[in-house]
Amino acid sequence: MSKILTIGEILVEIIAIERGNGFREAVPLIGPFPSGAPAIFIDQVGKLGQDCAIISTVGDDDFGWVNIDRLTRDGVDVSGIEVVPQGTTGSAFVRYREDGSRAFVFNILHSACGQIELNDKTRVLIDGCTHMHVMGTALYAPSVVLSILDAVDRIKAKGGTVSFDPNLRPEILDSPGMREALQTVLSKTDLFMPSGEELFLFANAQTEKEAIDELLAKGIKAVVIKRGQHGASYFDKDTAIDVKGFKVEEIDPTGAGDCFGATFVTFWLNGAAPQDALRYANASGARAVTRAGPMEGASTRAELDALIQSQERS
Amino acid sequence: MSKILTIGEILVEIIAIERGNGFREAVPLIGPFPSGAPAIFIDQVGKLGQDCAIISTVGDDDFGWVNIDRLTRDGVDVSGIEVVPQGTTGSAFVRYREDGSRAFVFNILHSACGQIELNDKTRVLIDGCTHMHVMGTALYAPSVVLSILDAVDRIKAKGGTVSFDPNLRPEILDSPGMREALQTVLSKTDLFMPSGEELFLFANAQTEKEAIDELLAKGIKAVVIKRGQHGASYFDKDTAIDVKGFKVEEIDPTGAGDCFGATFVTFWLNGAAPQDALRYANASGARAVTRAGPMEGASTRAELDALIQSQERS
Repeated sequence: MSKILTIGEILVEIIAIERGNGFREAVPLIGPFPSGAPAIFIDQVGKLGQDCAIISTVGDDDFGWVNIDRLTRDGVDVSGIEVVPQGTTGSAFVRYREDGSRAFVFNILHSACGQIELNDKTRVLIDGCTHMHVMGTALYAPSVVLSILDAVDRIKAKGGTVSFDPNLRPEILDSPGMREALQTVLSKTDLFMPSGEELFLFANAQTEKEAIDELLAKGIKAVVIKRGQHGASYFDKDTAIDVKGFKVEEIDPTGAGDCFGATFVTFWLNGAAPQDALRYANASGARAVTRAGPMEGASTRAELDALIQSQERS
Repeated sequence: MSKILTIGEILVEIIAIERGNGFREAVPLIGPFPSGAPAIFIDQVGKLGQDCAIISTVGDDDFGWVNIDRLTRDGVDVSGIEVVPQGTTGSAFVRYREDGSRAFVFNILHSACGQIELNDKTRVLIDGCTHMHVMGTALYAPSVVLSILDAVDRIKAKGGTVSFDPNLRPEILDSPGMREALQTVLSKTDLFMPSGEELFLFANAQTEKEAIDELLAKGIKAVVIKRGQHGASYFDKDTAIDVKGFKVEEIDPTGAGDCFGATFVTFWLNGAAPQDALRYANASGARAVTRAGPMEGASTRAELDALIQSQERS
């Protein structure tokens, strides 16, 4: 039996209801929604019925419990979430600008999850997992990077696998040691899942095909390119597959890439053909954007089947 | 010329629109409002045209600038606010329960203002001030307590005065060193401004009169008791004055005590008779509750005059 692990930030997300430019005056908001890219990822994994766990840290406040309650309800092993009595759960305020881009106010580094250190209990949890998903957003602090690299090594040493979604915020890329950490993770990655320009982060190539060849030559087993509403592609040494996206009404794109990744990894680990894993992952990303709130659009297998059937009929 | 100083937390406040019990699910909110008891106090002082300053720390984010912009606009010297590039501005989420009490999620200790240390620049600022207002909420961290006690000593040494609003959150009272810090501040206080049970924090007395006598015997020059909608009272060795409250529709009580205190201190320092200072302070507290948002109901002198005239006519 496989068990998927991730390590990283747990946040609440507060969303401005109206579009505009930042938070320099009082505006209508809605929240707190459970959030944090690794948390969204693992929640979607859990909702598919896949055994999974997250290692993170929250404060003993409503915002921490919003997350623990949701993850528990959706089937995630939350035993690796430390609740710090005097800590503050991380937060992200997000406002969509008129052009659809996003303005954030984050509280991560100085929040409870600004430090995640492994202990005897979480090492036992890691040793019970067979796959590690690394979310690039989670490489925000030295202790978290160390914890992730340690988990990657422990899981690989026992024959497990690693997936890696660079999911980079530009402001993170230039933080000290970040590029080195990314390179280290990539060197141990089995399944690489970039979107957009992230494909070229670790390649000297100028074209998509060259970049993929370069990455596969490094020992990565498969590359999945996320193209949002335009679908996705899968590449390994023998295969190249493109699938189209689903047509849905976009309400809130946050979390779609995380749900896509969670669904692909879950199907891939369970032996699905790449074509099928891509189709379900696409459906998962599509459903995710139809709901406000980063984790609100996570799907069950039945919900994905329903979307796939409805669009294949039409 | 007098100049009033305060030191302490600067926060944004996010307010749940509907009443209920905490933040364990997503609810409609409004914010960010500039907030923090010392910030509300000093904003009201500035709005009255009184020279004043605050020493605090914010992050270089929208939430810090919401506060700096507002305080600047309202006439506060903000040169003592340090903007920390990688810091996070403090926050308070508040939700009114059905019974009118409040449930908070705070981020103060781990926010930018979790640490406030004096430097050469802020010491020059302190030496240009003639009055220090100590807000009990601001005694939340050792560095802030030290900064406040240092400022009190510097201002007293030059013949200045000190006012003290205990403004205690119960969870603060039992933090290490808190009672000692409060006693030290009280021993240097000229004007003590408790509300409710706070009068008895530093007195062995059982009745209000005995408690006031005990405090005045300790060397405190005057005691002002805030009674919310029921008005306020002033006591010194020779005087006892009660004034009634104003009749207004309460929208949001947060900040009313801070505005009351700011207005009383400003009038008192400018030589107003206690009766007049009380009347204006009452009007200031009354206007504060008529607006959602802790600092939104701060008043100009003209607005206070208008309220006083309208209620004295009626």
